[in-house]
Amino acid sequence: MGIITISREFGSGGRELGKRLADELGYAYYDKEIVTAIAEKHQLNEHYVSYALESGNFRNFPVHFGRTFSYSPTLMANESKLFAEQNKLLKEIAAKGNCIIVGRAADVILREHRPFNLFVYADMPAKVQRCQERAGEDEHMSAKAMEKQIKRIDAERKRYHSMISDIAWGDKRGYHLCINTTECDIKAIVPIVASYIRQWMAERKEAAVD
Amino acid sequence: MGIITISREFGSGGRELGKRLADELGYAYYDKEIVTAIAEKHQLNEHYVSYALESGNFRNFPVHFGRTFSYSPTLMANESKLFAEQNKLLKEIAAKGNCIIVGRAADVILREHRPFNLFVYADMPAKVQRCQERAGEDEHMSAKAMEKQIKRIDAERKRYHSMISDIAWGDKRGYHLCINTTECDIKAIVPIVASYIRQWMAERKEAAVD
Repeated sequence: MGIITISREFGSGGRELGKRLADELGYAYYDKEIVTAIAEKHQLNEHYVSYALESGNFRNFPVHFGRTFSYSPTLMANESKLFAEQNKLLKEIAAKGNCIIVGRAADVILREHRPFNLFVYADMPAKVQRCQERAGEDEHMSAKAMEKQIKRIDAERKRYHSMISDIAWGDKRGYHLCINTTECDIKAIVPIVASYIRQWMAERKEAAVD
Repeated sequence: MGIITISREFGSGGRELGKRLADELGYAYYDKEIVTAIAEKHQLNEHYVSYALESGNFRNFPVHFGRTFSYSPTLMANESKLFAEQNKLLKEIAAKGNCIIVGRAADVILREHRPFNLFVYADMPAKVQRCQERAGEDEHMSAKAMEKQIKRIDAERKRYHSMISDIAWGDKRGYHLCINTTECDIKAIVPIVASYIRQWMAERKEAAVD
């Protein structure tokens, strides 16, 4: 059974790599699905859940509640429940078998499962370009504004990670492989990265049998 | 024409990976050869040349001169010539064609050649174990002493690198791929890493033709 976690700088193409790897390996893929599940269960706004889980910064978010506009003071009084919920869900996913999980600090939360941890990064100009190419026409942002947004999101990821791990988010020591996607055709590297992970997992399996 | 540079933490197996990659790809391999060439040319002790080039710390070395015991005050007065010599040699090597260069800050010195830069690292216990396995019987060192030596050597590499580059030695932003060799069978990953580099080079070539 294999679990792959992908941590990525915003705009590095880590999510695309994750999705394609899941297809290549025949693994289940989880990303926003985790947020959606928690939001639906608690009838909370997805953006709120996502923000709360990624940034660990509950209090500063302008709270708009989900579809039913209900309000749960109990939950609000103890937002750490969201974390607990996420962690429980991650462990359930891990127990189901082969999967790729993007973000959610799954590398730390699932460490007892000994996942393969991949970090995806790129130079700032490459990340800005990727974000601009992906943006809809009505979402146009200047390169400067885009860079600011990339830095802000990554700073949040870093801060969240630092709350639950001694090894900083993006510190290569926390990962088995770090891929720089600058000038890199993600589609073309997928089978190669899949081979690398397969090889790593085969060795782990062998070591477990020995 | 492809140039691959390998930077590595001491004990991570980066040199082994480099040698095997050179075999796999049919590339020339350079490591200590560069030091030997400079030492022979200037009739200097190889250890001295190696230390001077890696640490950038000329003055603290107990100077023992090479085979002829000759002494060149001119050279000593201007050790930066050693750097110039190394850089010239690296550029000559790069001009010859496909090659893998381990260490020597070739990633920085040859940056105009746009090499593929690989960083190899591992957890400390894995590096200590690798070093102990490699050591001869008469070279036995405790794990503690080995760890100290690993840290000292890597600190020198880091210091040297910082003299010629804004990006720190080991900072993933300076590399195209970073491989954690902890629990990793280096022999087994060689063909996969070779594929990755081939793919990267093919893309670069395509981009150059466009």
